[in-house]
Amino acid sequence: MERVVVIGAGFAGLSTARHLAGHPVQVTLVDHHNFHTFQPLLYQVATAGLEPADVAYPVRTIFGREPTITFRHGRALSVDLAARTVALADGAALEYDRLVVATGATTGFFAVPGAPRHALPLYTLADARRLRNHVLACLEAADARPEDFDGGAPTFVVVGGGATGVEMAGALVELLDVSVRRDRLRIDPDRTRVVLLEAGDRLLAGFEEDSSRYAAQTLRDRGVDVRLRTPVAEVTAEGARLADGTWLRAAAVVWAGGVTVDGTLAASLPTPRGRGGRVTLEPDLSLAGHPEVFVVGDAGAVPRGPGAPEACPQVAQVAMQSGKHAARQILRRQAGEPTTAFAYHDKGLMATIGRHAAVAQLRRGPVLRGTLGWLAWLGLHLVYLIGFRNRLVVLVNWWWRYLDWPSGPRLIVADVEADR
Amino acid sequence: MERVVVIGAGFAGLSTARHLAGHPVQVTLVDHHNFHTFQPLLYQVATAGLEPADVAYPVRTIFGREPTITFRHGRALSVDLAARTVALADGAALEYDRLVVATGATTGFFAVPGAPRHALPLYTLADARRLRNHVLACLEAADARPEDFDGGAPTFVVVGGGATGVEMAGALVELLDVSVRRDRLRIDPDRTRVVLLEAGDRLLAGFEEDSSRYAAQTLRDRGVDVRLRTPVAEVTAEGARLADGTWLRAAAVVWAGGVTVDGTLAASLPTPRGRGGRVTLEPDLSLAGHPEVFVVGDAGAVPRGPGAPEACPQVAQVAMQSGKHAARQILRRQAGEPTTAFAYHDKGLMATIGRHAAVAQLRRGPVLRGTLGWLAWLGLHLVYLIGFRNRLVVLVNWWWRYLDWPSGPRLIVADVEADR
Repeated sequence: MERVVVIGAGFAGLSTARHLAGHPVQVTLVDHHNFHTFQPLLYQVATAGLEPADVAYPVRTIFGREPTITFRHGRALSVDLAARTVALADGAALEYDRLVVATGATTGFFAVPGAPRHALPLYTLADARRLRNHVLACLEAADARPEDFDGGAPTFVVVGGGATGVEMAGALVELLDVSVRRDRLRIDPDRTRVVLLEAGDRLLAGFEEDSSRYAAQTLRDRGVDVRLRTPVAEVTAEGARLADGTWLRAAAVVWAGGVTVDGTLAASLPTPRGRGGRVTLEPDLSLAGHPEVFVVGDAGAVPRGPGAPEACPQVAQVAMQSGKHAARQILRRQAGEPTTAFAYHDKGLMATIGRHAAVAQLRRGPVLRGTLGWLAWLGLHLVYLIGFRNRLVVLVNWWWRYLDWPSGPRLIVADVEADR
Repeated sequence: MERVVVIGAGFAGLSTARHLAGHPVQVTLVDHHNFHTFQPLLYQVATAGLEPADVAYPVRTIFGREPTITFRHGRALSVDLAARTVALADGAALEYDRLVVATGATTGFFAVPGAPRHALPLYTLADARRLRNHVLACLEAADARPEDFDGGAPTFVVVGGGATGVEMAGALVELLDVSVRRDRLRIDPDRTRVVLLEAGDRLLAGFEEDSSRYAAQTLRDRGVDVRLRTPVAEVTAEGARLADGTWLRAAAVVWAGGVTVDGTLAASLPTPRGRGGRVTLEPDLSLAGHPEVFVVGDAGAVPRGPGAPEACPQVAQVAMQSGKHAARQILRRQAGEPTTAFAYHDKGLMATIGRHAAVAQLRRGPVLRGTLGWLAWLGLHLVYLIGFRNRLVVLVNWWWRYLDWPSGPRLIVADVEADR
């Protein structure tokens, strides 16, 4: 049987493996985590609304009943295109007949001095845990020793006004509210600030302008200091310096500024790369000169389709669709059929701003905002969340969080275990 | 109002605070974790049956509606009995009129060479997470590179045949079974071993002899290599050396060998200490010469009651009862009444061996073993688990784990994030 190696168990890699299941190919899915991360909900983990396990799902459980799909726990270091092998960090080499590179992207700091060291990114589950622990520890410190903070209370800066930044800023003000109102933390809600910095002239750049305005207005109504046309020049342990020289002292600088493929395995492939370091692809998503290698998801400059020069955005939808496309092309090649060009079916965009406030801009139908948009967002995320049990647990948590049950939200820093 | 400082948010400290709530005393509850840990279920976290958050509960949520109870996040370093202050690691000093020391115990390695460094204890939530990650990583490594293991499969050694050791050994064989059967890990179940070492001549020493025999037999039937009268002489990175010179190569040595008060804050009090380093107490649980200071739970040699020379065991029941007793004595003192002697009401003992197998030795009624004992154990733990939502989530997880639902158990090592 043909051996297919899929590197990466994100949305793209999982989608490839799923669509190869049941067909006569032997699939090895490699990832250095033994779980899939549901990235769209990471900001909820970072703000203590969900637990890490609510947004992570073991890969072995997903494919437990698929005999042709094997999971291999390990970090892929490099690909030898000539020898058709993938080298793993533990010394093993996996041979392949077909390869699917679904290694995703990584946080992009865009050469802002100090950002890689001092800003807290929100891209992996580890990022989300670290950020959550830091934020909760800051709140406890502000309760115990307000004199340690400028103005007696912490300021949180979020860099980047895309979906992640908007969601993070919205969830942070909710967390602050709950900390003061329910958990009786002695911090002054009027002095504790959340600042959202965006270099461009509007939030949610990919959305309609009305949605951008709605997002900015809603965040401001909830107490977020939204600053547009405000690039960050430097990040230090004490805060952020803006391009105009203004200094923002901050307890945490959250980095939601964007992603890059630089530094990932995909970047080591000997092929041209485009914007954000993404690998340039043939229309069928294969590598030029290597029809046996496909690149899917965030790692590739996935073409929108015939005649559309621009690449697709780096979102879950594109990852899932491109992963499925690669699987189909592998099966077509096996059947001796020619491959087909990828075409993106844009189903719309969604971003949540907080409780009862979201923007759902679907391809068909009206733009939903407010509670309706939020319910649409909730429903869609629950449908896509992997595993019935995970959905159930997440639902219980949300029910508590949003319907305001007496026990209040969980503010566990079960992860902060180091002696301090 | 009188200021009461309670150090420690374990069973004993929580119990004290709960019983002081609503009374005219200003309580400050100090802990270096902002959560309470439900220790009896840590072995489930260590074997991936439950998530860390399922057995941890934020202290602020517990007392969110009690205006007289304040939580202070911080590590108590020492007590100045003369000045009546508690020094915290962040430099603050808390003044008190009455003090309750509920600092618990810590893992006791009993001078076994190498144990503190190489054995993996199971006493705190951090221990459970570390152990779980290590065990799951071993299983993945055995799947990927069986040649790295002696005999082609890992051996897990559990030291200590008390309740923790018995529960851990039982849960480990269940995890192995599930890993092979459900997750299709390519490890040979006949070669993967769980060895339970006990220095004494029976398991569950505090139980009736019939229960000890039942536990040993059940574990053996499930594949555990139970060795009685087998003390450990040394632990290394490669395994354990027994007192008779036998060498056991092991992927992990789990330490369930006991606890000590040595090295904790309670041990720094200028008072005599008994077995296990426990602080010697007056009959009312106060410190000799310091009627304003009480020691409760595992930290104290809690007297069984008038006429009983032996101290109580270090179990949750004693912690809760002694915490409540200290609260009552504080209120009696305030009311100008004399204090009363503590008397332990032993409600019985319980230990689970695994699915459908437990021993429940209640004070009144018959000894329950097997499925009945297991259901009693399940019910009691759910009742005592703090918070309705936690109970609900734990119930969902158990339902999946024990009733064998199609999606199988979660084997997430969401915590293993370090590059490997």
